[in-house]
This record gives sequence, C-alpha cells and structure tokens, in this order.
Amino acid sequence: MNGKFIVVEGLEGAGKSSVIGLIVDALKNAGKSVEQTREPGGTPMAEAIRDCVKHDWDEQVSEETELLLMYAARVQLLTNRIYPALESGVWVVGDRHDLSSQAYQGGGRGVSPDTMSAISHIALKGFKPDLTIYLDVEPAIGLERARGRGELDRIEQSGIAFFERTRERYLALANNDDSIRIVDAMQPIKSVHNDIKTLINNYVVGV
Amino acid sequence: MNGKFIVVEGLEGAGKSSVIGLIVDALKNAGKSVEQTREPGGTPMAEAIRDCVKHDWDEQVSEETELLLMYAARVQLLTNRIYPALESGVWVVGDRHDLSSQAYQGGGRGVSPDTMSAISHIALKGFKPDLTIYLDVEPAIGLERARGRGELDRIEQSGIAFFERTRERYLALANNDDSIRIVDAMQPIKSVHNDIKTLINNYVVGV
Ligand SMILES: Nc1ncnc2c1ncn2[C@@H]1O[C@H](COP(=O)(O)OP(=O)(O)O)[C@@H](O)[C@H]1O
Ligand SMILES: Nc1ncnc2c1ncn2[C@@H]1O[C@H](COP(=O)(O)OP(=O)(O)O)[C@@H](O)[C@H]1O
Ligand SMILES: [Mg+2]
Ligand SMILES: [Mg+2]
Repeated sequence: MNGKFIVVEGLEGAGKSSVIGLIVDALKNAGKSVEQTREPGGTPMAEAIRDCVKHDWDEQVSEETELLLMYAARVQLLTNRIYPALESGVWVVGDRHDLSSQAYQGGGRGVSPDTMSAISHIALKGFKPDLTIYLDVEPAIGLERARGRGELDRIEQSGIAFFERTRERYLALANNDDSIRIVDAMQPIKSVHNDIKTLINNYVVGV
Repeated sequence: MNGKFIVVEGLEGAGKSSVIGLIVDALKNAGKSVEQTREPGGTPMAEAIRDCVKHDWDEQVSEETELLLMYAARVQLLTNRIYPALESGVWVVGDRHDLSSQAYQGGGRGVSPDTMSAISHIALKGFKPDLTIYLDVEPAIGLERARGRGELDRIEQSGIAFFERTRERYLALANNDDSIRIVDAMQPIKSVHNDIKTLINNYVVGV
C-alpha cells in the first residue's frame, strides 16, 4: 500500500468532523493526495445501509443485525474506495472505522469478544488503519454538543450508560494498541487542534 | 417451541411460491395456525435490507457484503416474527432460509465453509428449521420459468455456472441432513404437488 489510512474516532460530539478538516488540510500541505470517508457509508450502497441501520424502526433491531449491517457497509467502502485509494498512493482520512464497531457494538451493546473478532476477521481479513486518533470525551459533554447539531438518530438515542460502556471500551482498546493515539477532546477546541496538528506533522515526517 | 418451522428451498423458478400456498392450505386443513415468511425480508427493516441486497448497484458488491446483509435480514425476521410465532404455537412456512445462504453464498459465490459456519452461528445460534423441502431443478429450466415472471434482479443475473454451483451445494447439503427432503421439481406441476401433499401429511401425522 502506498497511501496511509488515518481514522478519527470518538463518541458523538467528540469533535471528529472539525478535526478531520484539519487533518486533510495538514496532509495536503504536506503534498499528499487525500480522500475523506465516513462510516457507515461512503458508497451509494453503503449509504443505503447507513440509512437502514440508523433509521428509527418500529421493530426491535437486534444487536446482531446492527453489527452485520455495520460490517456490510464497511466491506463495501473498503472494496470500492479505501483499498483502491491506498493502492494508488492516495491518503485516506476516515470518520470512524472498525474501532467504532469494537466500542459501540462490542462495548456498548455487549456483543461478545468472540463474535466481534470473528466478524471483523471475515469482513476485514486483518486490514487495519495505519493511525487512529481517538478523541476522548465524557458522554454527557459529547451528547450535549451533538444535540446542538439537531435530532439524534436511533443509535444516538441509546441511554448514557450505553455511551459510558462505549467510552470505556474505546479507552481500553486505545491503551493496548500503539497505532491508536488518545487526544483529550474535553479541552478547548484550540488546544485539541494544536494536539492534532503536532500529532499529524510528526506522523507525516516519520513515515 | 410449540409451532414448527417448515422451509421451502430451491433455485429461482423451482416452484417455491406455488408449493408454499399448497403447504399453508394443508396445514390449515390439519387445524394449525400458520404464518408465511420470505427471505430476505419479512419485516419492514428486513425488506429494506432485501431491496439493498437485490438492487443492481453501480459498484462492485462484495461477496462478504451480500453475505452479511442476508444474515442481517435473517436475524430481524427471526427475532421479530419467527421466534414469537413458534413460541405461541403458530406454524411458520418460509420461502427460503439459511440453506439459501449456504447454497448461494457458500456454493455459488464460493465463500469459505469456515466463514459460512462462523456467520451462521453468530446469527442463528444453532436455530434450525424443523423441516426443509428442497425443490430440485436444473438451473436452465428454473431460470426459463423465472424469466416468465419478469425482470431478473442482481442475484438472478448471475451466470448459469453460478446456479450450477448453487444447485450442487443444495444437493450435497440435502443429502447429508435428514431434516431436508428433496423433491424433483422438474416433474409436471401436478406430480410435484402430489409429492408435497404426501410429504406434509406424513409430517403432520408424525409430530
Ligand atoms: N473541543 C471542543 N470544545 C467545544 N466544542 C467543540 C469541541 N470540539 C467540537 N466542538 C463542537 O461540538 C459540536 C460537535 O462536533 P462534531 O465535530 O460535529 O463532533 P463529531 O463529528 O465527533 O460528532 C460542533 O458544534 C463542534 O463545533
Ligand atoms: N413443476 C413445474 N412445471 C412447470 N412450471 C412450473 C412448475 N413449478 C412452477 N412452475 C411455474 O414456474 C414459474 C416460477 O415458479 P415460482 O413458484 O414463482 O418459483 P420460485 O418461487 O421457486 O422462484 C411459475 O410461473 C410457476 O407456475
Ligand atoms: Mg461528525
Ligand atoms: Mg417465489
């Protein structure tokens, strides 16, 4: 692979969207060709799957259904956009990726580690981002920020305990993986952005 | 479980739809409450997933995506309709179920046995129909009949070799499972229906 895959992760309202803009600019300034993705979504079929998984259905949505749909969308995005971009030397900056499923479905919903690793293996075959930036925020703070953006979707409507479990899993996984960097997203936005700029500039110099 | 789950399987044009009508009538005559399902589909969310997987997308649809979507729809149907019906004593007659994935995605598309059994286990947790009737038909004959019904969807447009592999897998699995009965669906429709009536009447008496 010639390009690098950088993923921004975190709870709703952590600040992923603004941080992604910053990273894309920094990479372009460093002379890279850059593509942006978001998950679930990013191809017409994957966006249809996103609508399906986020819709507020008038029926019980099983944990396994949510999990299978997340990975279905992920495989479409990988096959049609991420792999081809990386192969042609383009850098990809992703708004969420596998770590979101590990944290939300694995941590938040409580899907078993065996199931998580089986399905992740089937879908990704060992593929991993080169760098993940996890924006750490307390659920109450993140949700307060996200509410400012408008209506919450089906998953965003899960209770605060769900997001506490999700954050805990994010932190546990981040602390055990050198390719995941934790940034304190409860700082003023300027400090967050400074942390990100330093992190990305060091990363670009190092590869 | 108080109800029984009877599934009708086979290639496109095998004659599943008409056979299902017959089975439902026979069960009702035997005094059973009966519900009909089809896969993928059968709940509003599962029908949305069906549209998604059958749509002729202008992008490569990966084998794993197709597989994950089929099982996502299956879990929704199980959770919201099949389990509750069986528990309340209702018999369910299904147009396709897990054997279709085993034959189409496993046999036709060539998804590995390990992947098939991992995903099936995650989604179904060992749940199995009580009786499956496999309507065996040569692909050329079935597709000719199906063409009479109108436009073919994305999966139906797969080449004849795909359906040959699918039929082979159907037969191999049916020959190794006592709960799957093979009916020759290349006979005149009247003979097929006679075979089905005998089979169902014997089954109802036996349980
Ligand atoms: N560090 C921060 N402090 C205060 N507000 C922030 C901070 N980071 C982001 N925000 C604001 O919070 C809201 C949600 O941020 P957003 O980037 O949309 O989060 P996400 O994409 O992670 O859900 C936006 O209005 C954004 O400007
Ligand atoms: N044994 C048979 N011989 C001839 N035509 C048949 C037979 N069984 C079904 N058909 C016809 O073939 C077409 C497809 O049957 P259908 O029940 O829709 O198949 P499926 O539901 O398995 O795709 C229908 O027009 C049906 O009447
Ligand atoms: Mg965002
Ligand atoms: Mg039919």
